[in-house]
Amino acid sequence: MIEKVLIANRGEIALRVIRTCKALGIKTVAVYSDEDYNSMHVKQASEAYHIGEAAPAKSYLNQEKILEVMLSAGADAVHPGYGFLSENDDFARLCEKNKINFIGPSADSMNLCGDKMRCKAAMLKAKVPTVPGSPDLVKDVEEAVSIANDIGYPVLLKSVYGGGGRGIRLANNDKELREGFVSVTGESIAAVGKSAILVEKFLEKTRHIEYQMARDKHGNTVHIFERECSIQRRNQKLIEQTPSPVVDEEIRERIGEIVCNAAKAVDYTNLGTAEFLRADNGDFYFIEINARLQVEHPITEYVSGLDLVKLQLDIANGEEIPFKQSDLKMNGYAIECRINAEDTFLDFAPSTGPVPNVTIPAGPGVRCDTYLYPGCTVSPFYDSLMAKLVTWGQTFEESRTRMLAALNDFYIQGVETSIPLYKTILSSEEYKNGQLSTDFLKRFDMIDRLTEDLKNEKIDKSEAAIAAAVIHSEYLKSRIQNDVSASSNWKYKLD
Amino acid sequence: MIEKVLIANRGEIALRVIRTCKALGIKTVAVYSDEDYNSMHVKQASEAYHIGEAAPAKSYLNQEKILEVMLSAGADAVHPGYGFLSENDDFARLCEKNKINFIGPSADSMNLCGDKMRCKAAMLKAKVPTVPGSPDLVKDVEEAVSIANDIGYPVLLKSVYGGGGRGIRLANNDKELREGFVSVTGESIAAVGKSAILVEKFLEKTRHIEYQMARDKHGNTVHIFERECSIQRRNQKLIEQTPSPVVDEEIRERIGEIVCNAAKAVDYTNLGTAEFLRADNGDFYFIEINARLQVEHPITEYVSGLDLVKLQLDIANGEEIPFKQSDLKMNGYAIECRINAEDTFLDFAPSTGPVPNVTIPAGPGVRCDTYLYPGCTVSPFYDSLMAKLVTWGQTFEESRTRMLAALNDFYIQGVETSIPLYKTILSSEEYKNGQLSTDFLKRFDMIDRLTEDLKNEKIDKSEAAIAAAVIHSEYLKSRIQNDVSASSNWKYKLD
Repeated sequence: MIEKVLIANRGEIALRVIRTCKALGIKTVAVYSDEDYNSMHVKQASEAYHIGEAAPAKSYLNQEKILEVMLSAGADAVHPGYGFLSENDDFARLCEKNKINFIGPSADSMNLCGDKMRCKAAMLKAKVPTVPGSPDLVKDVEEAVSIANDIGYPVLLKSVYGGGGRGIRLANNDKELREGFVSVTGESIAAVGKSAILVEKFLEKTRHIEYQMARDKHGNTVHIFERECSIQRRNQKLIEQTPSPVVDEEIRERIGEIVCNAAKAVDYTNLGTAEFLRADNGDFYFIEINARLQVEHPITEYVSGLDLVKLQLDIANGEEIPFKQSDLKMNGYAIECRINAEDTFLDFAPSTGPVPNVTIPAGPGVRCDTYLYPGCTVSPFYDSLMAKLVTWGQTFEESRTRMLAALNDFYIQGVETSIPLYKTILSSEEYKNGQLSTDFLKRFDMIDRLTEDLKNEKIDKSEAAIAAAVIHSEYLKSRIQNDVSASSNWKYKLD
Repeated sequence: MIEKVLIANRGEIALRVIRTCKALGIKTVAVYSDEDYNSMHVKQASEAYHIGEAAPAKSYLNQEKILEVMLSAGADAVHPGYGFLSENDDFARLCEKNKINFIGPSADSMNLCGDKMRCKAAMLKAKVPTVPGSPDLVKDVEEAVSIANDIGYPVLLKSVYGGGGRGIRLANNDKELREGFVSVTGESIAAVGKSAILVEKFLEKTRHIEYQMARDKHGNTVHIFERECSIQRRNQKLIEQTPSPVVDEEIRERIGEIVCNAAKAVDYTNLGTAEFLRADNGDFYFIEINARLQVEHPITEYVSGLDLVKLQLDIANGEEIPFKQSDLKMNGYAIECRINAEDTFLDFAPSTGPVPNVTIPAGPGVRCDTYLYPGCTVSPFYDSLMAKLVTWGQTFEESRTRMLAALNDFYIQGVETSIPLYKTILSSEEYKNGQLSTDFLKRFDMIDRLTEDLKNEKIDKSEAAIAAAVIHSEYLKSRIQNDVSASSNWKYKLD
């Protein structure tokens, strides 16, 4: 049985894990970089150890140092959170070797999930639908043209070494494909010295719908419903909700069964998330498995009543999942807004520095997971996620109006946040009506509408910020419209 | 339809009401005394008006001043919260006269609920069981002896003008009764110039179990389950939970039906609470109806999924209750700890002053309703309740362990709190086993055990506080043991 867990992470997710451990009487070990010595996770853990400099490579990604702390502190398990080492199979293997219980899948399974081509092959074998495209890297432009004609245009050309909008092209016909092939090859070689290209069908108005799943070491497998995470910017999720407005009980069960098969296909253990694209015609296509606890897990906790970190610990302890699929009933509606420290009007640039004061929303059906406290600092070295604001309601409308009220109550002094944008989105008819897609921001001109809301004083913001908004909105719109990857399934995600 | 609500209250309950109003798009008007100009409820409301000096009689109890604000601010409704004017039928009548929607029962119904003798008569007529005793004031000592012999010893002699342990005597036989009659008469005359005495059966190891009920203006009546509030000190509830460990589905329905009959018997509208004593043999005895929103309503919100303030507004708007009794399903277990600003080791004396810093617990299944923020002040003029810490779990044990973890995370700088006592209680085998009764603190020597926990460093506290604890615990024990009213149904409550 796990008695002492090292949390190889920081910020809100470190606090989240510490909370459940405390409730279960499990000791916790925090680690921290130079930048984080005064962070809340350091204050809340039973013990805390310094592991290095601010840069992640020198601290939160330093496997040897973290192992050293685990051994000297006598931790018998490690929770990796999300990001950092959470999907690093070398680290999982290092823990296995040193008899540290890694709270997540086995190193082999994680490796398989992380290898897009092998994972896709395993899914095809398990009859899990994937996006139509080349089964492997294409050897030349002629093969690409042939595949594109088979699956039908539009298609995406993607370098497996690309990232951030580079190494990707949309092609609507043979001519664009041939031109694009040359560019993508060039960009890929320029970036990493070699080229490896895939062809994939480009799906329009797609939704990002993912399933929480869990599998124990005895092979029991369940899904814990879907989450719709279509509101994104550059493949980074901004707002998530469950249930999805386009998933009914029949779809939930049918795709849920596919998810359980996908988990078995990669011999997955512990909690994971199977991500899908849903095309406008209602077809679901598997994208990938995220082999860790997901940022947006609280919305699933709200509608299932489960403590997902406790479930992770139980499974890591070798216990059987203490319920059956048929025991799970979805209760109500939950929404999460990721409160990021960034300035919408400066192309979502990070906004960091001291936070002298903060007021955190609360009340019935409101949960806020955050590392913020008055006097804390938002560091430029790490992810911009400061808080996850989550609301629940018996109806979607109750959940939505609670979120709007909570966004209004959330006061964070000293940094710009994504809160004003979320108010505009949550108030829009399109959001209310569930017209979600991964290009939601562009499709419904959300930045323009935020600018209008600011000008009309619907949203509180300083005069300087409003002026900046007007200046920047045109530039910003052009950026978002060129962001073709926003509606594709291709990504190198941080979490 | 209600469009603008004045909240005739302060502290956490004012914030609670503002939250639901905001989510529903209803404007809010706060009122505040000299003491409260910097309070959170003032900051969060749409508008705020100063109404007088710190002393409640000069501000929050000043009906005319509050009416003046309602009329000038254009409020069409008033929410009284709990305490202050919430059960004042004169105020309800004043609102009725001025066409202000009073969010609560009618003035007549409130008056009937507040008149113990008339209310008891109405309950007897509706076949609602009440504590055996004199049906009315006893005219002399001989009548008291006769009634005592009818209902059987032990009995309580109670002056209806008593309060705070005065004007009340326990009698185990005729001799004690005759002696007690003289003393109670004397105390009552000394206090208020006249005597009026009741005889009531004294019930041992009683539990305080109450039912949330709701009745709309169309006569639809439901109960929203029970709350067990047995952990008290001097009739002030400290810890509440739902479900009660001694209420099963059969009892819940049977007593629930009685509760609905009680509501009808006094032509109650809006939300109210029917309080019962449960004797050790399992019999339930009605005590009274609290004609307002109860402090401990959040535990009911957690297990029912309802927003009870929204339900109050709907009923006040003349709408029908939007669900049937059979639609209500109890989900999970909830506990509330009332975090009071008082020093357990100074006989629970108020501990007031500036709170430079505060850390409010959060996380899955944790809700904290509080007016605290870093830099706020706990005022000596008002109730000691600073925060209501509420936890939910799929099981009682999950709820309990979450509460313990949340109590540990709750940091309030500058004032003494009831948190250390709650840690001792929540950790005790007796609490875990549900051995609850209104004399729980005395029965299980909780103050001694808190002192031990402090000495053994199980609970963090300063050395000075530990020394004080040891010195005071003997004195304190004697006070608690003499507190006979703690196990009676007699009270003049603030809320």
